[in-house]
Amino acid sequence: MPILQPIVNIAELLYQKGIIDVLVSPGSRSAPLTLAVARHPHLRIRVVADERSAGFIALGIAQQSRKPVAVICTSGSAVYNLAPSVAEAFFQQVPLLLLTADRPHEWLYQQDGQTIDQPGIFGSQVKRSYDLPADYAHPDSSWFIERSINEAITLTRSYPAGPVHVNIPLREPFYPTAGETFQFERVRTIDTLTGIPTLAPDTWHQLLTVWERSERILIAVGQLPRDPNLLRILRKISEELGIPVVGEITGNIPVNELFITHTDTFLTPLDDETGNMLRPDLLVTIGNSFLTRNLKTFFRKYPAHQHWHIQPMVDRITDSFQSLTTLIPSDPLLFLEKLFADVDYQRFLQGDDDDDSHEYLNQWLALDRQAAQHIDKTLNQPDTPLTDWSAVQVVLEQLPNNSILHLANSMPVRYANLCGIHERQQISVSANRGVSGIDGCLSTAAGAALATDQIVTVLIGDVAFFYDRNALWSAPVPPNLRIVLLNNDGGHIFRIIDGPSRQPELETYFETPHGYTARNTAEDAHLTYQVCDSLETLGSLLPDFFQPGQHAKLLEISTDKFINQEQFLAYKTTIK
Amino acid sequence: MPILQPIVNIAELLYQKGIIDVLVSPGSRSAPLTLAVARHPHLRIRVVADERSAGFIALGIAQQSRKPVAVICTSGSAVYNLAPSVAEAFFQQVPLLLLTADRPHEWLYQQDGQTIDQPGIFGSQVKRSYDLPADYAHPDSSWFIERSINEAITLTRSYPAGPVHVNIPLREPFYPTAGETFQFERVRTIDTLTGIPTLAPDTWHQLLTVWERSERILIAVGQLPRDPNLLRILRKISEELGIPVVGEITGNIPVNELFITHTDTFLTPLDDETGNMLRPDLLVTIGNSFLTRNLKTFFRKYPAHQHWHIQPMVDRITDSFQSLTTLIPSDPLLFLEKLFADVDYQRFLQGDDDDDSHEYLNQWLALDRQAAQHIDKTLNQPDTPLTDWSAVQVVLEQLPNNSILHLANSMPVRYANLCGIHERQQISVSANRGVSGIDGCLSTAAGAALATDQIVTVLIGDVAFFYDRNALWSAPVPPNLRIVLLNNDGGHIFRIIDGPSRQPELETYFETPHGYTARNTAEDAHLTYQVCDSLETLGSLLPDFFQPGQHAKLLEISTDKFINQEQFLAYKTTIK
Repeated sequence: MPILQPIVNIAELLYQKGIIDVLVSPGSRSAPLTLAVARHPHLRIRVVADERSAGFIALGIAQQSRKPVAVICTSGSAVYNLAPSVAEAFFQQVPLLLLTADRPHEWLYQQDGQTIDQPGIFGSQVKRSYDLPADYAHPDSSWFIERSINEAITLTRSYPAGPVHVNIPLREPFYPTAGETFQFERVRTIDTLTGIPTLAPDTWHQLLTVWERSERILIAVGQLPRDPNLLRILRKISEELGIPVVGEITGNIPVNELFITHTDTFLTPLDDETGNMLRPDLLVTIGNSFLTRNLKTFFRKYPAHQHWHIQPMVDRITDSFQSLTTLIPSDPLLFLEKLFADVDYQRFLQGDDDDDSHEYLNQWLALDRQAAQHIDKTLNQPDTPLTDWSAVQVVLEQLPNNSILHLANSMPVRYANLCGIHERQQISVSANRGVSGIDGCLSTAAGAALATDQIVTVLIGDVAFFYDRNALWSAPVPPNLRIVLLNNDGGHIFRIIDGPSRQPELETYFETPHGYTARNTAEDAHLTYQVCDSLETLGSLLPDFFQPGQHAKLLEISTDKFINQEQFLAYKTTIK
Repeated sequence: MPILQPIVNIAELLYQKGIIDVLVSPGSRSAPLTLAVARHPHLRIRVVADERSAGFIALGIAQQSRKPVAVICTSGSAVYNLAPSVAEAFFQQVPLLLLTADRPHEWLYQQDGQTIDQPGIFGSQVKRSYDLPADYAHPDSSWFIERSINEAITLTRSYPAGPVHVNIPLREPFYPTAGETFQFERVRTIDTLTGIPTLAPDTWHQLLTVWERSERILIAVGQLPRDPNLLRILRKISEELGIPVVGEITGNIPVNELFITHTDTFLTPLDDETGNMLRPDLLVTIGNSFLTRNLKTFFRKYPAHQHWHIQPMVDRITDSFQSLTTLIPSDPLLFLEKLFADVDYQRFLQGDDDDDSHEYLNQWLALDRQAAQHIDKTLNQPDTPLTDWSAVQVVLEQLPNNSILHLANSMPVRYANLCGIHERQQISVSANRGVSGIDGCLSTAAGAALATDQIVTVLIGDVAFFYDRNALWSAPVPPNLRIVLLNNDGGHIFRIIDGPSRQPELETYFETPHGYTARNTAEDAHLTYQVCDSLETLGSLLPDFFQPGQHAKLLEISTDKFINQEQFLAYKTTIK
């Protein structure tokens, strides 16, 4: 057995436990891991030089495949370059397995290169952290490694999914000698079965009683991947029970005649009468974070009498609206399906159709429609200028059906949410709303495009784009990637929000204009590049832009920050 | 008093405690800190969008100024983007003060944006971590903040210097209301005086006895900033006492007729006879990490009977050569000066001149000269091709006197050390040899150039250059920066070292060729750009390249990886 056989076995364990995609950043200390996965017949390896980018590309693949993705890097600061994507994965609940090579621990603080204190380095930003032994002479060491990798992979997936760190100290030699071949031995996988939490009949009955006694029930959906089954049951509940379903673009709640998707516009200027009118007796939430402050503020200011949050397992008490009363361990889809079935059956038994006026739903719907009209009025005038926002609307409307959209932080995701996407387009939306940084949006979208053959469009501002342009450098840029770059020459959000826009330091300390266009970046990365400076051009460019092609494409939309600001302030003034 | 007055006071405390340079990355949560430092009349602020770059620019400024530099960033993954520079600063012992804005802690795990678990986030990679209160109503809170900032700044500088983290939870509002002005109140500074460790006369006497009884004494110098006084005493000790002084380019030990600087070449192929001949009885080391493996391996294989390490204070036992016997708390310069004076006086008293043959020194010198000739033969033939290494030699020889050189990881610093720099040029050398990552070399050099008016040259390979090119994007690029880019289209080190060069995965998984040139990057950043593809051109371009100018300059030297490899392998074969 070669000395590093337990390390070679990790590759086979990944495969056996369902991990196919592996990101590798080059390094010498990590070479045994790199060679093991590279020589494994069934793993799919991508090599990315910048670890920060590699981590976010892995995140993008995992977002789409909904399977854990492994990341391999060398020792030292390489590990710390993964940290931003680790934090995003933790809070967005995306499964990543971080395999970090390390020097054997006796070399820490001995002035050796690329040696930092790696065990547990990601602190509470990972679900768990393992530190493998550097010596394998004793058979218990191999047992420990095999068992830990089994547990670590299981853990990435179990609720809440997230990143798990395995630190791997390695001794030289790192490279096989001439003629030495890698054997992928039979490994032992340990299956960890998943239980489905079921509520006891008594508990279920109590919940049902509360539900039936509540006059005004509202369902709000936080960030979630697109799930047609969930949309179907939400539609049924809303339609037949008259319950408003409130959602945002990041929760994949589309615009249709029924869902409440314009809350960011109409929940702003509420007088108390309207606020109390809209306040639910029972609020039911599912999903992860909510995007807009207006929505969160509304639910905090007009708290529901009862607030249920449904999530697959009981974990922390996450009380975003400061109104939580009951945390329900259940799969949201199964819960809502069973609930609807039971309530519907009760109604059938009772012949209870007298509350079909759906007054509460209609109150929400009326405001939602009014808000939609208001946005329409803002964006669809004969003289509407080319702004970030109006560009976003045009792009959203022309997205190819069934394609994937990644919304970058910070303004693109907000503009897109103000517009919404119609249900018929069947767009799957993702965004890094775990930590909401601008640092890895482009890499995440590139990762998403690697995981699918569909068109993946990323809507991104210039600061986020240039910040993360290494996504396009050493990484493979998939030809189905479409980058729509809103270039307003700086951190535009600071001019839009109230506080910084009033400060004399706005431009120098917040916006930080840079004067860059993406032309050279696109040329270096062999992207098909187009510029657009009017709304009409934009509309006519997009059909071709979304066509499949040999290369990824970048469409740069140059906007004027003052016109952007003017349009947004006018909108804000009129909604007050 | 405005609500955030204790935060505003931090700016004044920085100034009073000797911090002038502050790096700011834009953010809203961090706005009170940003505004406080921006409005302070005496602080020097630079704004950099990419926090990873900001951290390394701060490190570069601190390397040159030898004063702590503060870094301000917003909450969330922004903080984690500082981590690579924090690790480098910790292990390189460079003083940084990290001021990270945070949400008040009650918002953690509440699905709020840009909220991660920040207190203590840098683990053991900082000297200490503080977490300030979010509420200032009780006067003890202000006392705590003032005291903590005092302590934190002191700590960045005290031996071993390094990064200190202050996490600062902030409540809204972040921005002053219209007409509200910032008052920089009188703050209380707490001076922490520094003691100089002094050895008791008995202890000193014992050391002196060991010194005098040792026949073969050798001094080896690890990474240290340039210090003419230290060079002077080292020269004296070597010349008059016949003691070899061994050093590397990162220890700022220059090439002259006396110092032993070519160890990487001649310590490779030692037979045991030579090894034992060179082995010291007493080894004295000062400084931080050593660069080359050959040197480290020699001292491990032929350990000194006694090994003293001299550092300003007793801290950890760092035993790089596995031979340490005595850790001596003393300033290296003062120690060596006193030692020389005492030994010299003893010799005078004893009239002891009979060991002036300097046999041991001459043994080292002979090998060093032979090595220098060998390198000369490798690089200075009529038909020497343009390679990374031959380019490095030409650049080093033409560096402007008294200028600053930053050596990037991984090959440039090694090539430069093989060549060395002559004492007459008086070059001050820096390199990120704390953790030895490629991640922030360009930013560090840009930081160095911000801290001085002298020419700062960075020798950098293409992977390190593109990895860190955000140094040139939103950051101010100082006109005295000179970038010499050795572009061999990939991670060349893997082709040079033995293990990976033998693997079929070399190109795809280690070198990762990208096909980029820096032309577009230079154009975007308004750098003066030149390409060079022959050794003659290089020699003729450099005088103008090093002239002062309005813009930073980039000289791209394209080399062929196969020719690089051939030259290096030929060198390695002949030294065997």
